[in-house]
Amino acid sequence: MSPHAQPPHDLIATLERIRAGRGSTAAELDRALEAADSPVCAPAFLKTFRDQALQQAADPARQALPLGGLPVSVKDLFDLAGQPTPAGSRVLADAPAAQRDAPAVARLKAAGATVLGRTHMTEFAFSGVGTNPHFRTPANPADAATPRIPGGSSSGAAVSVAGGAAFIGLGSDTGGSIRIPAALCGIVGFKNTQRLTPLEGALPLSATLDTVCAMTRSVRDAILAHEILAGRQVVRSTAPLRAYRLAVPCTQMLDGLDATVAAAFERALDRLRSAGATVQEIELDAIRDLGSIQATGGFSAAESFAWHRSLLEARGDGYDPRVRARIERGAGMKAHEYLELIRARRDWIARVEASLRGFDAVLSPTVPIVAPPIAQVAPGDASRDEAFFRVNALLLRNPSVVNMLDGCAISIPCHGAGELPVGLMIWQSAMRDDTVLNVAQQAETALASITRP
Amino acid sequence: MSPHAQPPHDLIATLERIRAGRGSTAAELDRALEAADSPVCAPAFLKTFRDQALQQAADPARQALPLGGLPVSVKDLFDLAGQPTPAGSRVLADAPAAQRDAPAVARLKAAGATVLGRTHMTEFAFSGVGTNPHFRTPANPADAATPRIPGGSSSGAAVSVAGGAAFIGLGSDTGGSIRIPAALCGIVGFKNTQRLTPLEGALPLSATLDTVCAMTRSVRDAILAHEILAGRQVVRSTAPLRAYRLAVPCTQMLDGLDATVAAAFERALDRLRSAGATVQEIELDAIRDLGSIQATGGFSAAESFAWHRSLLEARGDGYDPRVRARIERGAGMKAHEYLELIRARRDWIARVEASLRGFDAVLSPTVPIVAPPIAQVAPGDASRDEAFFRVNALLLRNPSVVNMLDGCAISIPCHGAGELPVGLMIWQSAMRDDTVLNVAQQAETALASITRP
Repeated sequence: MSPHAQPPHDLIATLERIRAGRGSTAAELDRALEAADSPVCAPAFLKTFRDQALQQAADPARQALPLGGLPVSVKDLFDLAGQPTPAGSRVLADAPAAQRDAPAVARLKAAGATVLGRTHMTEFAFSGVGTNPHFRTPANPADAATPRIPGGSSSGAAVSVAGGAAFIGLGSDTGGSIRIPAALCGIVGFKNTQRLTPLEGALPLSATLDTVCAMTRSVRDAILAHEILAGRQVVRSTAPLRAYRLAVPCTQMLDGLDATVAAAFERALDRLRSAGATVQEIELDAIRDLGSIQATGGFSAAESFAWHRSLLEARGDGYDPRVRARIERGAGMKAHEYLELIRARRDWIARVEASLRGFDAVLSPTVPIVAPPIAQVAPGDASRDEAFFRVNALLLRNPSVVNMLDGCAISIPCHGAGELPVGLMIWQSAMRDDTVLNVAQQAETALASITRP
Repeated sequence: MSPHAQPPHDLIATLERIRAGRGSTAAELDRALEAADSPVCAPAFLKTFRDQALQQAADPARQALPLGGLPVSVKDLFDLAGQPTPAGSRVLADAPAAQRDAPAVARLKAAGATVLGRTHMTEFAFSGVGTNPHFRTPANPADAATPRIPGGSSSGAAVSVAGGAAFIGLGSDTGGSIRIPAALCGIVGFKNTQRLTPLEGALPLSATLDTVCAMTRSVRDAILAHEILAGRQVVRSTAPLRAYRLAVPCTQMLDGLDATVAAAFERALDRLRSAGATVQEIELDAIRDLGSIQATGGFSAAESFAWHRSLLEARGDGYDPRVRARIERGAGMKAHEYLELIRARRDWIARVEASLRGFDAVLSPTVPIVAPPIAQVAPGDASRDEAFFRVNALLLRNPSVVNMLDGCAISIPCHGAGELPVGLMIWQSAMRDDTVLNVAQQAETALASITRP
């Protein structure tokens, strides 16, 4: 692997520079704080901890830890000791303070992270678009001319990482909430197998599907962040791409690609094939059954309604109406329908796993479209609502397949300079995380001549 | 521990006799087959495998295994390869044959058990009474004069063990289905912590509460059976009763005891105190909340309705009307109510565990009444239905507390010769199985002068 293949501004490269005496944690933190105050990044933070961060980053003990005191951001749904956890809402702005940090946050801190602030998110983590009527939507850093959506629900996490204010954006992914903003903002987002990272202290959307995970600037940073969040070692492999057999499901996941995504995805497949990977198109008919499996309502509707019911009764008027409408869809679902959903999901997972047997990983466009302008989907009249829900459905379509599969997936950039960001999703079923990460590491290198010419 | 303290006719004593040359597997099997054909035991078996059993028990390799070829019975809800699994119903009498033995059955066979037959049960394991309109109810072997209920749902399992046809009665316990018949028939029933034994291949009532476990003639047999079913070693202790601190919850669990149970329970406590145990009455207020926690319907209703829905549509007329009515109660439960039940149960468990901290185990009467005559509760008019549901509620009341707790419990006999059987339930929260078993072993010895004078 040539040094050229490694992203120059990722966490690991920055730490190497600092440890070689060509930089300092303090200088990096100053740069991050400046970025966090910039017009691009400022809306990504609902709250920053400037003084605390400066103090933490100056601690030599922290600097000696794996994350070296470098700044990270935390999605607004994680508990931070002594603060309420509003999760992008107004209705919980005055909630009781958390007693302790969420384990995911505690693990990052214990590994030497400096927490710079709480990041913007869609209210209660609903929707993949990234807008929230209570707070200004952070615009996608990829387009300085037109304010475009950052993607969600971990909108601020993505902008904080893409905009230079954080090396790791801690977030969560229930139907794509890490991978969608990573794809739209041109960074890396890894959704591990759910059970590998602790959900405690993260305000839930769907206990069945929620995954605590993070965005980074490179695959190797994603591996490092995952190792810290999961408290485990990834089994790294240096096997080249020609060692891997990769599937490209044609069913549904390639439908409705816009021109930029279609071209970038085809180019990426060509590049991987040229590098020696076996890339094979397959049908994955089971994907078509997801609609009927979830016809009586999905996990998110039922589980979020159970969580929000009493809060909706008390303060429903303070919710984003688009979010409230989605939560209330869960009110009518029957217990036996929910139990049948669990059973149907189990059977569906078995079928998909059987179809993917023999493949090391699967390739799909993370999302079928580049980030649309915020103006198209911002709250307004009914036509905007319609556009919002249409865009939302498009964005969630591919990533949510992996959540239903209880699988793992990483989105890495595959667009060229001057193009709007496009994500390549590399995925597999549960507990195949290490293979997915190893394939992604090789793919990132193979695509470097496109993404960093 | 004096040799006197060990039950003379349990599995371990029988094996010791055989291995000392004072008996044979063949003779034991003959005795068991004779018992299985006797008027007392015959209704306990829905099906026997005489020829197969004779053949298996004659196999020297099987005789060398821990269960030595001795006979066991299997509740009708377990898969046995090549047979349908009707679970006490008529509607599944013609169901497709199971492909393989349920793991619990396979483990017993692998340990050298000879399976004598499938045992009577209440339809689909509903109710603790033990009656089933499709099959003659096996009368409780404890009373030759008046046909009394055996308790359920593992009715035939209890009668097969108490009546001398099996050393181990494999069954299941969702709200007391092992402990209730064990108590009413005067044998030992151990419900382990659910997660320790495999549920596969057992037709479900409630996936949340169902536990695969067994009845035996002694505590040491219960330990042996559990070790086989769980595939693990129990950490045995010879600590005497004075080493143990035991709680007696006064809340609800002592309400409405009949005279026989009240006297036997008090006498048992006296005996344990005399043997040195610390026995302390406590309030356990959380028990009173179980009603409101389950007000929208319990796990069994929702989960059984999900399982039975399509079968009820197709063949609902073939169900026991009392069972059908209970299953259909689950139809209306909402998904969010089910999820709230899960959350409420989790909180409730934490509260009960906190109350029981510092106690090695807890003592309660397994059930508050001795076995009533079958005639009182057999299908008939509305007054019989009322009696049935009243008795059923009484029988389930104490044991089901442990299922909601995700705990473990053993029922051991504590009645004197000439009295109708009374069970002493020794219990604790999840994964305290070994302590419960060790306390039970000591208690059985301390009570031997009552139960085997």
